[in-house]
Amino acid sequence: MQLLQTLCQFPAPSGAEAGLTRFILDYVGQHGASWRQPPLVVHDESRFQDCLLLVFGQPRTAVFAHLDSIGFTVRYGRELVPIGGPECVAGYRLVGRDSQGEIDCTLTVDEETEALGYEFSRTIEPGTSLTFACDFRETTTTVQSCYLDNRLGVWCALQLAETLEHGIIAFSCWEEHGGGSVPYLARFIYNTYAVRQALIMDITWVTEGVRPGQGCVISLRDSLIPRRSYVERIRRIAEAAGIQHQLEVEGIGGSDAKDLQRSEMPWDWCFVGAAEDEVHTPHEIVHKADIASMLALYQVLLREL
Amino acid sequence: MQLLQTLCQFPAPSGAEAGLTRFILDYVGQHGASWRQPPLVVHDESRFQDCLLLVFGQPRTAVFAHLDSIGFTVRYGRELVPIGGPECVAGYRLVGRDSQGEIDCTLTVDEETEALGYEFSRTIEPGTSLTFACDFRETTTTVQSCYLDNRLGVWCALQLAETLEHGIIAFSCWEEHGGGSVPYLARFIYNTYAVRQALIMDITWVTEGVRPGQGCVISLRDSLIPRRSYVERIRRIAEAAGIQHQLEVEGIGGSDAKDLQRSEMPWDWCFVGAAEDEVHTPHEIVHKADIASMLALYQVLLREL
Amino acid sequence: MQLLQTLCQFPAPSGAEAGLTRFILDYVGQHGASWRQPPLVVHDESRFQDCLLLVFGQPRTAVFAHLDSIGFTVRYGRELVPIGGPECVAGYRLVGRDSQGEIDCTLTVDEETEALGYEFSRTIEPGTSLTFACDFRETTTTVQSCYLDNRLGVWCALQLAETLEHGIIAFSCWEEHGGGSVPYLARFIYNTYAVRQALIMDITWVTEGVRPGQGCVISLRDSLIPRRSYVERIRRIAEAAGIQHQLEVEGIGGSDAKDLQRSEMPWDWCFVGAAEDEVHTPHEIVHKADIASMLALYQVLLREL
Repeated sequence: MQLLQTLCQFPAPSGAEAGLTRFILDYVGQHGASWRQPPLVVHDESRFQDCLLLVFGQPRTAVFAHLDSIGFTVRYGRELVPIGGPECVAGYRLVGRDSQGEIDCTLTVDEETEALGYEFSRTIEPGTSLTFACDFRETTTTVQSCYLDNRLGVWCALQLAETLEHGIIAFSCWEEHGGGSVPYLARFIYNTYAVRQALIMDITWVTEGVRPGQGCVISLRDSLIPRRSYVERIRRIAEAAGIQHQLEVEGIGGSDAKDLQRSEMPWDWCFVGAAEDEVHTPHEIVHKADIASMLALYQVLLREL
Repeated sequence: MQLLQTLCQFPAPSGAEAGLTRFILDYVGQHGASWRQPPLVVHDESRFQDCLLLVFGQPRTAVFAHLDSIGFTVRYGRELVPIGGPECVAGYRLVGRDSQGEIDCTLTVDEETEALGYEFSRTIEPGTSLTFACDFRETTTTVQSCYLDNRLGVWCALQLAETLEHGIIAFSCWEEHGGGSVPYLARFIYNTYAVRQALIMDITWVTEGVRPGQGCVISLRDSLIPRRSYVERIRRIAEAAGIQHQLEVEGIGGSDAKDLQRSEMPWDWCFVGAAEDEVHTPHEIVHKADIASMLALYQVLLREL
Repeated sequence: MQLLQTLCQFPAPSGAEAGLTRFILDYVGQHGASWRQPPLVVHDESRFQDCLLLVFGQPRTAVFAHLDSIGFTVRYGRELVPIGGPECVAGYRLVGRDSQGEIDCTLTVDEETEALGYEFSRTIEPGTSLTFACDFRETTTTVQSCYLDNRLGVWCALQLAETLEHGIIAFSCWEEHGGGSVPYLARFIYNTYAVRQALIMDITWVTEGVRPGQGCVISLRDSLIPRRSYVERIRRIAEAAGIQHQLEVEGIGGSDAKDLQRSEMPWDWCFVGAAEDEVHTPHEIVHKADIASMLALYQVLLREL
């Protein structure tokens, strides 16, 4: 879990993922040679901006894991505007850096207008990004931190990479703030490898129908509806493999799948990932059994899809 | 109208169109050889998912008719979430099927929260799709049923096919729930046939400006605004042909045209279709004169555009 | 400023830009030969609809300036529906033309329902476009008119063209009403010239953080967030050149950049433009110092990016 903690601490809100991309590149450089199938590392800023692709063997399926997190941008004076959809509770610790140095400040929320701001010993430069301060907590059954969404997905992708024979892992940007990288990643993957099956490796929500500790979620729908026959195949593979999982049915929420659904290519997609509670707060919490189930499910899906 | 009734009864909510696609494939297989110009049937799940294209002669214009309908997905317990935007009145009959067998249940709407649910003798499996039970009614002047939007468009496309010499009929998916197939259909059509003129064969609404029985609607705009010069050409063709029609001007509503407008291709598009009353209920009603006018207008437009 | 006045008077709401495109084509035909680097004029209705591209030298950066404006479409009776998001104050003069002749009418706003309408001596044909009547006002320090957004951007693009050596100026359509032309313009530019750097030449808002007369705005974000490293490059170029400018940080608003961000290509983009007050009214006002700064900033950016 040391790697997961490092990932959760890494500041990389939407639009500013470059540092995390560099971290993962270094990680793959250090460890990739010892993996079962060392991947082709596709990283070229002029073609993929701050995204990164790992291509293993003869891929049939692509896994999309977004790098970016929610956060805040400093506006004018003491104002903040959100990056993505953070939960906003006065008192949350926010960290960042501007040309004057390190920042460790406190979120404020105007009780009447709900306007966001910060308290700090000095004014922060407009345009500075702030992210939740990371307080990583682990028990025998849970991990808790900001940004398990989606650093836990990124972590799981790197575990999956260790034994993956055939498949693509795509690390995407901007997911929390409207997307924008998956369209060209998908275009490249489709044109280069004729791959059109996708799995969205991301974290979803605990609800009355999705309970912690009862296995990784296969989402039958959220605000978008995937093609039924593809999702049914995934369910059958999960059932045949005997891997504990739960089915999700929602009318709201979205993921990198939006960009696949809207693309000029016939992508099939399904969201598969563990559920967390305290979504989009500094206290996101996931049950370790669901993490294990998530990794196991991806291992079998990448073999059998 | 027997064919129309069969189409209206066919369950095919967004994401689960595959059965209807198969039905139309069979229909074209049985009847296509006797049409004036037997079409090339383009259907390849790996490239077009559950969509279907009929290509006639040397096409200059593509007609998009969506296969899917609105409906409901069973969530947890007795909850439902909508597929697309159905009108929700307690008591509507909903039908479907899960692994335990046939379902014939009743829609419930919580008076305070407006939460959707169902009443049935047993619990339905989460993820099951439900659609309106079809009560098809015909008079000398009208047809009435659920899903005239857009099974009447599909029916009209199949009538058009009988005499069509040059053109493409594209049967699309997901229109009621945000789209997602027209982008790749349009890409294929544009790349393969250099066609960039589109007509959206769909059903619109009766309003104070669009009256039943006064002819097929040519929409000058809805939530999107088509290119003026293309719409003007269509108006001139309709007027020169002396086909009864009405002009629609709306600030809301959308269609498969959204995916054309946003595409990376210069598509011109115009919505042309009959108007219905009691939109998105089990009681959608269309005047037969408007159906006749719709078919006649498409016949002339496909010749002259 | 005579050219700017002519541009502001020209009726070209979203979807009906063809006349303005023709005007600019004629302008380039008359003046382009005397520019430092006569551009390649790319205009082909079958590929670019009513858009226009000017290609100079070996381009590395594309400038997008939208042609269209907000306005109104006549619905039924005396009703209007908006094109884009105009400010609606009863009494605004609106002009247009239908088959019965010239129209010069007055906007009405129902006090209770906020429904839009018009007062005129006769009924206007449904589907007719209306735009604000132009009252162009100039002082020593300001220009004021309807449609400075974005005719001032178009004007600035034509000034930039006079000395531009390498770059692309793309005149786009539909920006005020959801976009739709930038996707294919960007596709053509990317495929033909391998250009993936964009600047959005448009007009933004005066706010508490952006003041008139203090220089052109470089927007760090609006409703979308551009890639940080690209925006930082632009800031450094502006600072090194000593050109007066202001930084904008917003949580709302959008531009042609939306279509770049969502495209299947890895475009970097940044909004750079003067700020106006009385946005989307007939009284949009911009400080002349900000216009000068905007042009100077574009000149240096097109050289150095």
